[in-house]
Amino acid sequence: MSKENDTADLIIVANGAFPASDRCRAMLSCAGTIVCCDGAADKLTAAGFEPDLIIGDMDSLSVAKRTKWANKMIRIEDQNSNDLSKAVHYCASIGHKNAVILGATGLREDHTLGNISLMLTYLPLMKVSIESDYGSFFPVYSNKAVACSPGEQISIFSMDNRIKVSASGLKYPLDGLRLSHWYTASLNETTGEFFSLQFESDTPLLVYRALIP
Amino acid sequence: MSKENDTADLIIVANGAFPASDRCRAMLSCAGTIVCCDGAADKLTAAGFEPDLIIGDMDSLSVAKRTKWANKMIRIEDQNSNDLSKAVHYCASIGHKNAVILGATGLREDHTLGNISLMLTYLPLMKVSIESDYGSFFPVYSNKAVACSPGEQISIFSMDNRIKVSASGLKYPLDGLRLSHWYTASLNETTGEFFSLQFESDTPLLVYRALIP
Repeated sequence: MSKENDTADLIIVANGAFPASDRCRAMLSCAGTIVCCDGAADKLTAAGFEPDLIIGDMDSLSVAKRTKWANKMIRIEDQNSNDLSKAVHYCASIGHKNAVILGATGLREDHTLGNISLMLTYLPLMKVSIESDYGSFFPVYSNKAVACSPGEQISIFSMDNRIKVSASGLKYPLDGLRLSHWYTASLNETTGEFFSLQFESDTPLLVYRALIP
Repeated sequence: MSKENDTADLIIVANGAFPASDRCRAMLSCAGTIVCCDGAADKLTAAGFEPDLIIGDMDSLSVAKRTKWANKMIRIEDQNSNDLSKAVHYCASIGHKNAVILGATGLREDHTLGNISLMLTYLPLMKVSIESDYGSFFPVYSNKAVACSPGEQISIFSMDNRIKVSASGLKYPLDGLRLSHWYTASLNETTGEFFSLQFESDTPLLVYRALIP
């Protein structure tokens, strides 16, 4: 993972599986600001950290917790967006430009899929990555070279099943490969110090970088 | 979940998060045949069950386990498919028509995404569903009515971001809604005893049914 992510200024904690790894704990320890989506605040404190802000409809918090955290709570009622989106929009509105999202995956699989795809809608507002105990999702724009180490496990996903992608610096060739299914460009491997992707779309691809087990 | 799934003749256990819920344990207890993808055999026995077959390249099993299970192992070398796909293809080749897949989600998120999307490629061979501690993925063909209970949490996904979907029997309207992102038709709710989907595509939609927490 990049040095940048390991010292995130802003971490937003969604209410999926709370990360248990030393890597994610270190990220929380170094964060400038920790914003929790509603019930994720309980998981954060159980892990020994304190939220700076809690955003959502607060349905998941006990009355005692609501009292304790009254001055940290930002209540946003909006049936059309989930708590993670509310948190990202609020943080963007107060000036944040970058965020690492933890707890976006795990538990209910439809929340996992939704949160991953929502990442791309945040990009006009804020540069985000999703980090978990198992890996990292980040957006890649066409023709961008990404620094890496040789042998990293990489998967590439698109919201658009018509997009054709070419790549250099990966073990398995992508030469105008149409990403018709989510598995189509998954489980690849970096071969050198960087890889780059070429494709024609206004929407970035999502790259997943697996952590070495 | 359907009665059919609760008494699956064939369960294939992939090597993601092994399910811990009573519901999934009951499914394993009642299964006619349990087929494990490679290292999932260890997780299965740790949970108190025995595999009938183990399929894969066996890289994840210790020498002692390989000896113990020698007569249950089907070694299939194919760099172009994962162990779950190898298991599905093998089980189809010996006559199975239906399978419940456990352990397809959890742990590495790229494996989760890949396994979910691979489901649709199995359909010419076998009718499959993915079951986890949190919910169930199953395919729905156009105009099919699906029996349900009122108030079930439902999400709908497509491999094709151009597909437009209409629905009846759901709380939030889908009236020719284009499924441009994975979140687009997620987090809906059933209103009656069945719901139905209308769309034009040769590829089924994937419906996710969340378990009540």
